Amino acid sequence: MAEQALTVGVDLGGTKILTALVDGAGRVVAFHRLETPVDDGFEGVAATVVDSVRDVVDDASADPRALGIGVAGQVSRGGVVRFAPNLEWHDAPLGALLRERLGLPAVVLNDVRAATWGEWRHGAGRGVADLVVVFLGTGVGGGVVSGGNLLEGCDNAAGELGHTMLVSGGRPCRCPGDGCLEAYVGGWAIGERAREAIRADGSAGARLVELAGSAEEVTAAHVTDAWREGDVLAARIHEATVAYLAAGLTGLANAYNPCRIVLGGGVIESVPELVDAVRGPVLERALGPVAEGLEIVRAERAGEAGVIGAASYARRALDGTMT
Amino acid sequence: MAEQALTVGVDLGGTKILTALVDGAGRVVAFHRLETPVDDGFEGVAATVVDSVRDVVDDASADPRALGIGVAGQVSRGGVVRFAPNLEWHDAPLGALLRERLGLPAVVLNDVRAATWGEWRHGAGRGVADLVVVFLGTGVGGGVVSGGNLLEGCDNAAGELGHTMLVSGGRPCRCPGDGCLEAYVGGWAIGERAREAIRADGSAGARLVELAGSAEEVTAAHVTDAWREGDVLAARIHEATVAYLAAGLTGLANAYNPCRIVLGGGVIESVPELVDAVRGPVLERALGPVAEGLEIVRAERAGEAGVIGAASYARRALDGTMT
Repeated sequence: MAEQALTVGVDLGGTKILTALVDGAGRVVAFHRLETPVDDGFEGVAATVVDSVRDVVDDASADPRALGIGVAGQVSRGGVVRFAPNLEWHDAPLGALLRERLGLPAVVLNDVRAATWGEWRHGAGRGVADLVVVFLGTGVGGGVVSGGNLLEGCDNAAGELGHTMLVSGGRPCRCPGDGCLEAYVGGWAIGERAREAIRADGSAGARLVELAGSAEEVTAAHVTDAWREGDVLAARIHEATVAYLAAGLTGLANAYNPCRIVLGGGVIESVPELVDAVRGPVLERALGPVAEGLEIVRAERAGEAGVIGAASYARRALDGTMT
Repeated sequence: MAEQALTVGVDLGGTKILTALVDGAGRVVAFHRLETPVDDGFEGVAATVVDSVRDVVDDASADPRALGIGVAGQVSRGGVVRFAPNLEWHDAPLGALLRERLGLPAVVLNDVRAATWGEWRHGAGRGVADLVVVFLGTGVGGGVVSGGNLLEGCDNAAGELGHTMLVSGGRPCRCPGDGCLEAYVGGWAIGERAREAIRADGSAGARLVELAGSAEEVTAAHVTDAWREGDVLAARIHEATVAYLAAGLTGLANAYNPCRIVLGGGVIESVPELVDAVRGPVLERALGPVAEGLEIVRAERAGEAGVIGAASYARRALDGTMT
């Protein structure tokens, strides 16, 4: 398909629907943003997606060839959203509905895998065949490219990097397990660790409590603010985050032997210093051939990676290289 | 290549050289075993491999089409053994030497990846496109098949499952890191944990000390023996091994979303009960779509997996499906 031909990318989350027209070079040529009408259920949200795609296409007088949509949930290879907690969907046939209503080839994938694809093809992961992408937001998600293939796994759920092990028998996670990477370095977990530290030593937490209004309201954002001011407790929490993230990335490096690790998401956007802070410990502790030449860099496409990746993935499908 | 055509598989370790003629169905039709003359260096060991291959071929009056050799070390894609600690080799051009001396296409790969391939094609991993194989011996190694591809990574070092994270900041490993899965469930680590437990509580360790001769000589094998007798301390160590292994496998399941996990190696062969013991905890704690349908089974080809896998991998190379 020509570089100039456009595809549509949609990033569907529990709060917003991002829709973009993207060219073959990963450039966003038109963009819409809507609230997600979660209360309207599957039919209502899907109708909003359809309207959003039509609007962005009409506004640009474009003739896109395909649609890719990333959804915050578990997606089957056939385009059924099996479970999307934030949307309250179970077994929703999104792919079939979009194909029918829009008359376009439509591929559905997990939103984090879409963003991984976006960073790989058009962001900080360009040019390597072996890539690990970790997004640290409230939760921790990721994706893996190995030998030029986006890992999908047995049930299209490979690359749940936030739920790889960090501390056996450790902190409870929001998933059925405990000790997961997310339970230490996800935004919710950083906040939780801070609140525990304040309960253990109230006087040390004075500045955090002041920023948040109360000890119970301290979040990762307050830790970042206090750390930037030089607060001692916040610095301790930050240092622990660095150590946890470095340990987790060391394990992932040994697991996948990527050429490059890309770090993105809200936690990295507010504390980009984490990228430089973890690099040394990871390169020191990973196995020799794994550490050799390993790059650890910051994501480039920030909030756009999802729509760009979904659009680019749809292009791949059209190009007939779908597996 | 016809099913009947034979290939040679070699499993080259620091103590023994196993050489086999293998048919397309993974059947071993001839087999040799030699000591590895480590002190003779690269040339001497390679000459022994060449002799061993010639002997096994001549004895069977066979006409093999290709050779695969698994080596306990880091192997480049071009067939150079970059580092093999037990053989004391650095940058040894094994593939080129074997091709020249034997006049056969020869592929060199890491021995654990070869055994993974053997279990996948001709053992307990048959029939699935997404597979994790973990070998628990003195050390812990493994391999991963995802979407029908054996993961290789950026520098041919993917799948170092023994060095994925288990306890951030935990027990020192024999690799440059700490807290690795191997540092808890490798044979050497089980022995170390037992010796520490005895130092902490000498009277509880009486039976282990009796079996080993002294507290310093207690190994994983003594723990197994004492556990089978009902010894309380050995049971505690065994239960901890189950918990550590289950946590590690949960993380690996979330990382790769395999259809099946195959467990093999000396620790599993002496305590096959581990396979059943970890199944429940892993299925309970892995993410929903990851746990659904996940099988956890014991390896089938035991000590043969390496030679079978190397021979089978060579067959794939001949078939022209090498990536």
